[in-house]
Amino acid sequence: MTQDRIWTAALLVIGDEILSGRTQDKNIAQVARWLNLQGIRLAEVRVVGDRTEAIVEAVQQLSARNDYLFTTGGIGPTHDDITVDAIAEALGVPVVIHPRARQMLEDYYGPRGGLNEARLRMARVPEGASLIENRLSGAPGIRLGSLFLMAGVPHIAGEMLESLSGQVEGGVPMVSRTIGCWTPESEVAELLSQTEASHPGTQIGSYPFFRDGRVGANFVVRSTDIAALAGCADELLAALGARGLEVIDAEL
Amino acid sequence: MTQDRIWTAALLVIGDEILSGRTQDKNIAQVARWLNLQGIRLAEVRVVGDRTEAIVEAVQQLSARNDYLFTTGGIGPTHDDITVDAIAEALGVPVVIHPRARQMLEDYYGPRGGLNEARLRMARVPEGASLIENRLSGAPGIRLGSLFLMAGVPHIAGEMLESLSGQVEGGVPMVSRTIGCWTPESEVAELLSQTEASHPGTQIGSYPFFRDGRVGANFVVRSTDIAALAGCADELLAALGARGLEVIDAEL
Repeated sequence: MTQDRIWTAALLVIGDEILSGRTQDKNIAQVARWLNLQGIRLAEVRVVGDRTEAIVEAVQQLSARNDYLFTTGGIGPTHDDITVDAIAEALGVPVVIHPRARQMLEDYYGPRGGLNEARLRMARVPEGASLIENRLSGAPGIRLGSLFLMAGVPHIAGEMLESLSGQVEGGVPMVSRTIGCWTPESEVAELLSQTEASHPGTQIGSYPFFRDGRVGANFVVRSTDIAALAGCADELLAALGARGLEVIDAEL
Repeated sequence: MTQDRIWTAALLVIGDEILSGRTQDKNIAQVARWLNLQGIRLAEVRVVGDRTEAIVEAVQQLSARNDYLFTTGGIGPTHDDITVDAIAEALGVPVVIHPRARQMLEDYYGPRGGLNEARLRMARVPEGASLIENRLSGAPGIRLGSLFLMAGVPHIAGEMLESLSGQVEGGVPMVSRTIGCWTPESEVAELLSQTEASHPGTQIGSYPFFRDGRVGANFVVRSTDIAALAGCADELLAALGARGLEVIDAEL
């Protein structure tokens, strides 16, 4: 089992449209997978509406106990985009116009009707912030130390993550192997538990499925220690085979 | 603006597979939409891993400030299913075998290899709980007053919601109308803000999109007051038309 430091992040998803069920969130999975690649573990997620007090509370609690905090949503030009103001309030800093963001917006909107008051809102940042550029829209994301404010539209958030790749310090990535098996998970529960216990530093998750009228489960072995992962997964694979169970989709 | 009481719920999504990005959550949107139909507002969501202390903290905080708390995930037969134990700990009650749940599992697993220790785990409930039956699996969900424990697999959680329909007291539902328009939201931001402000009890959310190479936005007007909703949406529609903007997808 590795003794390396574990880096953690929290994600705060901001938007009434998620809580109303109108919009299916896609940022949780996207941010989670990107963080894994950086060697950072997504430790917790919250979803709150477009309400200042809810954002302030979440930002204060989540940033106090994680190395990083990412937010998605609420950085656009309209009145319901209140993330920048709420986060400045949470941090006790003023909101200022970022000169480079203003320039980027002028360049982008020059041929598109020009900069108006609403568009200029997207140059507002908590004092001390730097920008997270993206290729798709004129409006940048915002970085303030360990805090990252990104767009809510998933493909724009994805571009912002892309531009942050390799820029955020992490540790040893969590790696995983998935072993699919045609068995009800309840028939091998004891085996899973024992195998996990005999390989310190590993975790086994069990995720049932129904496919082609048959019951099966994916067993996902996770660890930051590649050798421990391999030992655990190999033993589980052998044990399932020894019981005559049909293994599928094993990532070897 | 209606003065009716607003009923709120929180959702706690439990599972390492969501935080690792392996599984795209579908329960947030599903629970949100179902709650709307019951006249209950989804006020906040948290996602935590399969860790007792994280579940205990979230349950205590979320149930203290919402009328209802729903959870998804962690009620299956394997060692990583710890929701029942964590919630019993949060509430300070013991875990007991529910006789009816045991009977249901015996009936279900009778022709499927019989009840074993792992399967019997799914009859364990916090003391005082009743069951949320579902047609798809032998394992029921669990209700304990204002707390609802459901499966993580979306279609099973959906069946559990189905069987709860009309069983959970709510208030006046939030209703909405969506007005799509071929305009950058930043060109009508002031109009949105003014229209919302002149119709108390309404909210207007703005959600940009890119489609067929063109920029547009959906403006979602929400209210619990049908008359206020209609007044606000009609005025917005007329104002967009008066500017010569092309309105699409208006739900009238």
